[in-house]
Amino acid sequence: MKQPIHGGNLVWAAEQIGCPVSSILDFSASINPLGPPQSVLTAIQWALSTVQHYPDPNYTELRQALSEWHQLPSEWILPGNGAAELLTWAGCELARQKETYVMIPGFKDYWRGLQAFGANIIPVSFPWQSSDALKCVYNVGENDAGIIINNPHNPTGKLFTRETLLPLLERFSLVVVDEAFMDFVDPAQEESLISVIADYPNLIIVRSLTKFYSLPGLRLGYAIAHPQRIQKWKSWRDPWPVNSLAVQAAIAAIEDKEFTEQTREWLSVSRQQLLTGLSQIKGLNTFPNYVNFILVETEIPGPKLQQKLLQKYHILIRDCLNFETLGDRYFRIAVRTSEDNNKLLEGLSDICG
Amino acid sequence: MKQPIHGGNLVWAAEQIGCPVSSILDFSASINPLGPPQSVLTAIQWALSTVQHYPDPNYTELRQALSEWHQLPSEWILPGNGAAELLTWAGCELARQKETYVMIPGFKDYWRGLQAFGANIIPVSFPWQSSDALKCVYNVGENDAGIIINNPHNPTGKLFTRETLLPLLERFSLVVVDEAFMDFVDPAQEESLISVIADYPNLIIVRSLTKFYSLPGLRLGYAIAHPQRIQKWKSWRDPWPVNSLAVQAAIAAIEDKEFTEQTREWLSVSRQQLLTGLSQIKGLNTFPNYVNFILVETEIPGPKLQQKLLQKYHILIRDCLNFETLGDRYFRIAVRTSEDNNKLLEGLSDICG
Repeated sequence: MKQPIHGGNLVWAAEQIGCPVSSILDFSASINPLGPPQSVLTAIQWALSTVQHYPDPNYTELRQALSEWHQLPSEWILPGNGAAELLTWAGCELARQKETYVMIPGFKDYWRGLQAFGANIIPVSFPWQSSDALKCVYNVGENDAGIIINNPHNPTGKLFTRETLLPLLERFSLVVVDEAFMDFVDPAQEESLISVIADYPNLIIVRSLTKFYSLPGLRLGYAIAHPQRIQKWKSWRDPWPVNSLAVQAAIAAIEDKEFTEQTREWLSVSRQQLLTGLSQIKGLNTFPNYVNFILVETEIPGPKLQQKLLQKYHILIRDCLNFETLGDRYFRIAVRTSEDNNKLLEGLSDICG
Repeated sequence: MKQPIHGGNLVWAAEQIGCPVSSILDFSASINPLGPPQSVLTAIQWALSTVQHYPDPNYTELRQALSEWHQLPSEWILPGNGAAELLTWAGCELARQKETYVMIPGFKDYWRGLQAFGANIIPVSFPWQSSDALKCVYNVGENDAGIIINNPHNPTGKLFTRETLLPLLERFSLVVVDEAFMDFVDPAQEESLISVIADYPNLIIVRSLTKFYSLPGLRLGYAIAHPQRIQKWKSWRDPWPVNSLAVQAAIAAIEDKEFTEQTREWLSVSRQQLLTGLSQIKGLNTFPNYVNFILVETEIPGPKLQQKLLQKYHILIRDCLNFETLGDRYFRIAVRTSEDNNKLLEGLSDICG
């Protein structure tokens, strides 16, 4: 089986070491370890009795819940079969621009969505450690150019400020901002563009519910954009992309404020635990971080570390081989529970020490 | 709320008469009333513990189950988020042909998939009551033309024989056959093209599991085509289109032979009950039928009948307004349980009598 191009491929990892999927401790997919919330599991149980009906093709109830949450009219919101489905349609839109700027390093799935529709992709290697990280795209793409940006940025964890993003909206004819991890950012620090969406018909925001609420197996994301664009996407894709269980799970998730609080508490403590632990291990280096995953610079090549952790500790980390400019000098890990984090730190200390 | 373009829109129907969705008796969506099977519900329950992981992007286990069922190598099989998602990619492929022939009347979603990618659509009004129904497309589309056919045909219930379909595979450079309802056809009478798939790289078969196993809310279909085409579609669409619960539901469904037997027994008896009942109602006329839905010709306009049945009996039938050439002279009903069928027959007798 080929090396996977995304995190969370436990089937691949289990095959590597000949053990069941359930015995792998997964630091490769950046999923909240506290979830799914009990409220969500209960909602799914209840919704089981509805699977013999088609989902409401307008997703009225779900859009209403998202509308109240974000204080936006529901016409601006389109639920999708995971953020990944919405990236397909974002790719389709971007391919209509003369050129599309893509940040390097970055999430590989943007390329998939763009290439599917023959987009003219212009990769931009950007200085992600700099506070001026976006300056390199302020003076490119004069006419009919699009750009896709990830905020917070995967895999570096970089958080772009609203202030540095706004010039892109003036410059580019289409700006797609993937905010899949924004829910993990402390509300006092968040930099979502949702607050300015009404001013920019050339802005598309893609969000995910599956990472924060630990439901990647159920698939649920949504796009926020001008109602005309939402209508267009709706006319392109099939009538029932979101399954009924995901609909009810999402509504319950949004309402579960207690889970949100618990997650915020867990994250600030556990992330610090990991950062401190990592700083004490020889040959590893980390960067400022606001999310639930950490990019680590490593002296021992990332894929080698990955194999050793998998073989000896059944721990799966995300190598950065298919993140251009990072390559084997980095790896990415999710923040997990205190107990799991300690296991990882022990493994890393053993191998790097 | 606008008149829906697909069956099964219970939210719309309930709003029409100001009652809860659960009080509607739905004859508009052609879903097996015996399901979902208990085995499937149990599998979903079990799979709930896996939603915090991403689905296997290769869907190895599910493809293996489908592979054994159809006696085809798994490289020829691509699971999808309902047959509807696969119709999107079929539309994308067909749009690359110079022209695409679409049968009238026919399933409206084919148009959506084709129009999304700017296909050159040539509608063909075909004599669906004739045994020579396909003759009208035997001599069209000489170079780089595609065609999309539904077998059994929705909404007429027409079953095309393999023999009459094979000339299309010689004529057209791309043939998409939507076999969403083929599982309902008695095995002695089925006319699937799966048996010839290996001989035709220009053939794509789309199948659904949600109708026979009553899981439209969960979304599950699959495409069967040459491995090169499957790989191409996989590179276009997102990595995790099928949710983990649908995966386990599908595997359990395929293995449940008892449910298949029960469905076949129910269908032959209940369809006959409906056909006999309908033949005794003034102004209604039916046609030869092999599936779980019945097209009915009516003297009272279909939409008027629909409204009366909804208002007085809370029964929803499928009008045929958006099936061109059928219009208000026809309606479509699903075959349901004996008890439900009697309620419909009573309602129709009352209104037509």
